[in-house]
Amino acid sequence: MAMRDSASCIFCRIARGEIPADIVHEAERLIAFRDVSPQAPEHILLIPKEHVPSVDHLTDPDAVLAGELLIAARDIARRLGVSDSGYRLVTNIGPDGGQSVGHLHLHLLAGRSLSWPPG
Amino acid sequence: MAMRDSASCIFCRIARGEIPADIVHEAERLIAFRDVSPQAPEHILLIPKEHVPSVDHLTDPDAVLAGELLIAARDIARRLGVSDSGYRLVTNIGPDGGQSVGHLHLHLLAGRSLSWPPG
Repeated sequence: MAMRDSASCIFCRIARGEIPADIVHEAERLIAFRDVSPQAPEHILLIPKEHVPSVDHLTDPDAVLAGELLIAARDIARRLGVSDSGYRLVTNIGPDGGQSVGHLHLHLLAGRSLSWPPG
Repeated sequence: MAMRDSASCIFCRIARGEIPADIVHEAERLIAFRDVSPQAPEHILLIPKEHVPSVDHLTDPDAVLAGELLIAARDIARRLGVSDSGYRLVTNIGPDGGQSVGHLHLHLLAGRSLSWPPG
């Protein structure tokens, strides 16, 4: 199967190293970097390297890939030292979700008390 | 391996059918039901039936289970008819995340425009 990608997608370009980013973690199928508009003292984005537009575009076999994103978030939180203080993971799908880039990304927010509701 | 569970956990009790809930989806390893304090017109909680306290307690082999939660959220959103309008998925870990029940749960919020930051 061909690798899903998009020439113009900004997150694909970060994954390919064409655009600089403050990368905090890289694995075979995913990469994580700091959000350029942080909403908390720690604000990391985790993305699959493949171009999956959103959770709505995950295929059933993508379950492992999707789970790897959550496991990587767990590991990054531990490395940042926020596992005990806590954090929030968020992913937005479509207009009502407020999705701003059409490439699946998981936000990890930490370092302050996150309020409720989550937006 | 023994099934992870907790006799007193309210979400384990919902998963076992001991406490009523407005269940919208059930699969082999997960269940989804409406949040009793909805923060949006559609507000669903997805949980693994096994007692996993939070994302921080996922083991590496739990990647598939974690991914199944995201895939199930995709399917529930489609069934609710909110895939095109959009939605937000949130999971809280620990105090700063605002985690209120010590059993991993994924919030699906839809039916209104979710604001930013997410809490």
